Amino acid sequence: MYKRRKRLTVEEYVNGILKSDKIILSKAITLVESALESDNILAEQVLEKILPHTGKSIRIGITGVPGVGKSTFIEVFGQLVTAKNLRLAVLAIDPSSQRSGGSILGDKTRMSTLATNPLAYIRPSASGSSLGGVGTKTRETMLLCEAAGFEVIFIETVGVGQSETTVKSMVDFFMLLMLAGAGDELQGIKKGIMEMADSIVITKADGDNKVKCERARREYENALHLFSPSVTGWYPPVLTCSAIHNEGLEEIWGEIEKFTTFMKKKGFFQKNRQHQNIQWMHDIISYSLRQHFYTNEKISKLSRALEKDIENQKIPSISAARKLLDEYFHS
Amino acid sequence: MYKRRKRLTVEEYVNGILKSDKIILSKAITLVESALESDNILAEQVLEKILPHTGKSIRIGITGVPGVGKSTFIEVFGQLVTAKNLRLAVLAIDPSSQRSGGSILGDKTRMSTLATNPLAYIRPSASGSSLGGVGTKTRETMLLCEAAGFEVIFIETVGVGQSETTVKSMVDFFMLLMLAGAGDELQGIKKGIMEMADSIVITKADGDNKVKCERARREYENALHLFSPSVTGWYPPVLTCSAIHNEGLEEIWGEIEKFTTFMKKKGFFQKNRQHQNIQWMHDIISYSLRQHFYTNEKISKLSRALEKDIENQKIPSISAARKLLDEYFHS
Repeated sequence: MYKRRKRLTVEEYVNGILKSDKIILSKAITLVESALESDNILAEQVLEKILPHTGKSIRIGITGVPGVGKSTFIEVFGQLVTAKNLRLAVLAIDPSSQRSGGSILGDKTRMSTLATNPLAYIRPSASGSSLGGVGTKTRETMLLCEAAGFEVIFIETVGVGQSETTVKSMVDFFMLLMLAGAGDELQGIKKGIMEMADSIVITKADGDNKVKCERARREYENALHLFSPSVTGWYPPVLTCSAIHNEGLEEIWGEIEKFTTFMKKKGFFQKNRQHQNIQWMHDIISYSLRQHFYTNEKISKLSRALEKDIENQKIPSISAARKLLDEYFHS
Repeated sequence: MYKRRKRLTVEEYVNGILKSDKIILSKAITLVESALESDNILAEQVLEKILPHTGKSIRIGITGVPGVGKSTFIEVFGQLVTAKNLRLAVLAIDPSSQRSGGSILGDKTRMSTLATNPLAYIRPSASGSSLGGVGTKTRETMLLCEAAGFEVIFIETVGVGQSETTVKSMVDFFMLLMLAGAGDELQGIKKGIMEMADSIVITKADGDNKVKCERARREYENALHLFSPSVTGWYPPVLTCSAIHNEGLEEIWGEIEKFTTFMKKKGFFQKNRQHQNIQWMHDIISYSLRQHFYTNEKISKLSRALEKDIENQKIPSISAARKLLDEYFHS
């Protein structure tokens, strides 16, 4: 009648993480991603303990549409990072995972060299949507990786809208990968996403494509100059690279170092992180309040009915909202 | 001991509005803008009654930074609209009003000709922030104006970020006014705002400035083409105009008509409005839930303390959020 205990104690998790034990780190991430209330409480105890050991990495967001060569880029750029004797964790946020339960990284075959690199750790995103939607627990996963001594974190996402904002809100440096001359319309990159970028990198700058890439680089540079600069005074550089020929990658790393020096000197680096953390608390609260509201069965039924009434112009939005709020607070 | 009744009955409001009585319309808007609970209930009854008479206008959002010539533009463009025998309401959303209680339009001296035009109605925004923040009750004000027979609605705002999103979410056509060669950085226009525009209009295209405006027009056209087109298939035209010489304004009106025909034919016009109305209900709910949460004195005190703890890295955001939610739901 012996039931195997799957969960470790708080101390076992914490000690394992601080010792950089990848197996325990993975278990801790699974715990953090769990939708179980009891797991959540345990996860928070672990997070509280490891918190003093977090925050020492550079957090880099990497996005771009499918086909831009993200996996190849991360594979090669990741090797460059570990060649500097820096430990690298690659996390992925998959906007489709909410529905499919799938993950971008699949079975890690996408980045086979990096996957076997002892200085690297690759972890696909959770499929759960238990709190806050897309990439919910990625922030907490990032903290665990930092406590485990990873000095560089890549947070990868597919460029399709929603998820970029989430990534931007948890990283220090946000990098947008673009293709040259694919007809930029086809890349589906929204202007709002370009605005978030701390750097734009044009991939596949090799062979016949080189000239096109340089032209695209200048075009994007001009487009960026049309708009207002960021409050920090940082001008996002537009760079080209070829992952397969290992060209331009050192320059990208150079820009990231330049950026962090610049931001730390001006005090924006720490301020940005504090702001992100406080915002994250309020985001979780907003999400949980809405969750509590709409998972109420009576409310959700009434809400659907009122949406129909609004569509058919039977009720003004403000009255529909009040009806729902009255039902929620007074019953 | 006679106390003058300031409020009318629901019927008096409704009849006055449907008869296009501007004085009663103004009183109804004041009622809608009121922060008093009893006024809100009365206002909703009025809104419910007039709802079948709403929705027949073209709702046009107009934005641009101070100095772009918005007042002059609206003054002249408004005359063009009323010259077509269309009744025009001009509403303003002032993002600063939340703090100062002031309003963009001040005493209507900004648009003196339009203010005395019998086919026009000018109304500054409410200063209240009672529900939903910036421009809260502008949607309801718009409904009242539509029921009063106004066929074109301008919703004006200053281009400083937040308020444009609000305006975009309540109009059919969103127009961005820009200056040529002022150094676009100075205009502080964010890429995300350009992305929302259904048309960009470059103002003050007169005299020596004409050449510069035409060059700016081409530049913005190119910049817009760099990005992905809207799902509707509408390509935002970039136009120039001179309000003081009355040049280019008929073309702008032509584009608005082209846009509405295009959108109605494709079914996007009505869908967009339905979506806006449903979203508005959910926005009011989210706002009210947060309001209820943070106006709780115990919560707001604890929240401030936890923000400090997060800043000093004493607690992870997720634990801070849970502490607050536990306090809220269990006490």
